[in-house]
Amino acid sequence: MKNWNFNVGPSQLFDSVSGHLSEAINLGYGSISHRSKAFEKIYQHTDEQLKSLLNIPKENSIFFTGSASEIFERIGQNLIENSSHHLVNGSFSAKFYDYIHSLKLNPTKSEKALGEGFSNDEIVVPENADLIALTQNETSTGVMIDEVYIQNIKKQYPDKILAVDMVSSAPICSLDYGYVDTAFFSVQKCFGMPAGLGVWIVNDAVIEKAKKLESAKKTSGAHHTISDFYKNYKTFQTPCTPNVLFIYVLGKIAEEMNKIGVENIRLESIKKSEILDSMIQSNGKLLQHSVEKINERSKTVRVMNVGDNKNILEFLNKKGLEVGAGYGPNKNTQIRVGIFPAVPVEAYERLSQEVLSFGSLG
Amino acid sequence: MKNWNFNVGPSQLFDSVSGHLSEAINLGYGSISHRSKAFEKIYQHTDEQLKSLLNIPKENSIFFTGSASEIFERIGQNLIENSSHHLVNGSFSAKFYDYIHSLKLNPTKSEKALGEGFSNDEIVVPENADLIALTQNETSTGVMIDEVYIQNIKKQYPDKILAVDMVSSAPICSLDYGYVDTAFFSVQKCFGMPAGLGVWIVNDAVIEKAKKLESAKKTSGAHHTISDFYKNYKTFQTPCTPNVLFIYVLGKIAEEMNKIGVENIRLESIKKSEILDSMIQSNGKLLQHSVEKINERSKTVRVMNVGDNKNILEFLNKKGLEVGAGYGPNKNTQIRVGIFPAVPVEAYERLSQEVLSFGSLG
Repeated sequence: MKNWNFNVGPSQLFDSVSGHLSEAINLGYGSISHRSKAFEKIYQHTDEQLKSLLNIPKENSIFFTGSASEIFERIGQNLIENSSHHLVNGSFSAKFYDYIHSLKLNPTKSEKALGEGFSNDEIVVPENADLIALTQNETSTGVMIDEVYIQNIKKQYPDKILAVDMVSSAPICSLDYGYVDTAFFSVQKCFGMPAGLGVWIVNDAVIEKAKKLESAKKTSGAHHTISDFYKNYKTFQTPCTPNVLFIYVLGKIAEEMNKIGVENIRLESIKKSEILDSMIQSNGKLLQHSVEKINERSKTVRVMNVGDNKNILEFLNKKGLEVGAGYGPNKNTQIRVGIFPAVPVEAYERLSQEVLSFGSLG
Repeated sequence: MKNWNFNVGPSQLFDSVSGHLSEAINLGYGSISHRSKAFEKIYQHTDEQLKSLLNIPKENSIFFTGSASEIFERIGQNLIENSSHHLVNGSFSAKFYDYIHSLKLNPTKSEKALGEGFSNDEIVVPENADLIALTQNETSTGVMIDEVYIQNIKKQYPDKILAVDMVSSAPICSLDYGYVDTAFFSVQKCFGMPAGLGVWIVNDAVIEKAKKLESAKKTSGAHHTISDFYKNYKTFQTPCTPNVLFIYVLGKIAEEMNKIGVENIRLESIKKSEILDSMIQSNGKLLQHSVEKINERSKTVRVMNVGDNKNILEFLNKKGLEVGAGYGPNKNTQIRVGIFPAVPVEAYERLSQEVLSFGSLG
């Protein structure tokens, strides 16, 4: 029986990844310059496929970095004059805040306990904040911020840049880019690829803000600046030599997703969630939802309280099912299951059966 | 007949790269966490193989970034309190200077015309510079700074951090790490790999300097800081999810190089240089060395003045031999040939024959 990896990232690869990598090498893409026509075609294809998949407006730009963490820093270096305000409800939203702080900018935050979201809170953002940052899906706790809530923040603060970390939610959660100025993700989550590429989506307001700060000498750093990215993006080039192979593979994966249809992928994702939720419901002694409010439960990361997680993780591992431990303070008492496109519905059915058979042993 | 890519990077891949990538995916390394034992083993192996290949002292540390350009910025953010002094003799050494300048530090420079090196100059470094930066091999002009000259700089300024950009020289040029505090390269040059990984070597003086500046709140940024890298390096982990697959492949390539022996690879490299140099000598009308002084000519990038390079590049391209154009102001009047390990001696013999047959057409 096939082994399955339910880790929340790096996660199960799509079966097609290996073939796309070999194909890229056979086509000579491992050796091409980022100034070549061949590279421009690869970039353009990936750009088009991602725009179609994520419903990103044509006029937005898509840039590539080494990781999503790198984008935290680029946002701080390029887009913040005075300060940023952060919705912090887990380790990754806290990390975004910390990065901005380390750049000697003066971030502020609205903070929630682990496992809680913001659905009942009206956020108050200080007047001098240039940017509002939030994490659509906290991979550490399995809490999400829903799409309507995100839109409402922008409606309340239309003049501030809204930045959305969608690292483990894209393309399962949709975003309306009429309300989001910049968003980013990495490929080792829902895109089922090996780690090593960050994807950064920006609109014209972001480009303008970065240009304005740069003219006023209020940006810092020269690596992967927004103005350099944008100048090169116009001809589908990059400022420095990028990870060409992974940009190619991402274009292929996005193309495959578009063929299936993003709505179908989202529907399948709901099916997987339902399997997990009924598994939790049918053994409340063994498993409890760690996120209490249903509307704050992530669509892509299900987190459960299990007491000591050692035995259940070992049991599943022996069955060829790899499930993640908790994160940070919940490392030993929770399990985290990724609900990602590369793992099929049948695998969740098997996981559910095995978890329940473990439960019946106790 | 096989096609050959003599570009100075991204360059010809080693034939084994594709197999190593497939193997890594088959072994599940595309999905492993950077906190797993499996990853620690991969990191340790690559670390050991690189230390053996480049004769790096055991007590030094090796970190991985998204690119070598990223390391310019990290050096600025982590190691410079007052200013840095740069030996600038081409586009990449100028880029290093520009990066530091953009961080609002106050770099100074000693500058030479394109095609010239520093072999006759005694460098004077301002007293308040924390760090001296030089580019061992200017990929843009084919000028190198030889190893003894590098040692002499450190002897003259023992208290300053000496940083060496060895992007296109490692592992062909040797460095004595008794004199070099930090050095870095990317894998798409002499290592014959696809782009997407930077390699950063640091000694204990660098770690101490970064710690000192961090305590005094004189560093900037939180991404890939030296202190985070170092803390994680002790157990062969990384601060963020890295490009695991490429770290694995680099370990395998370094292992293969160690089996051949770095001295043998260097000897072969001399043979290739000699083929190119006698090609130049035998048709002085068509080709001239762009670097006049023999002791300043790169061991890995041979640059030639050819007048208008359009016809010769097209001619060679039709023969399946890809050669690079000039860089920057010399884009249309020079050709650049990488002398890299993944391209065998026979390919240089064929290149030489074809260039001379092109010459006889004129």
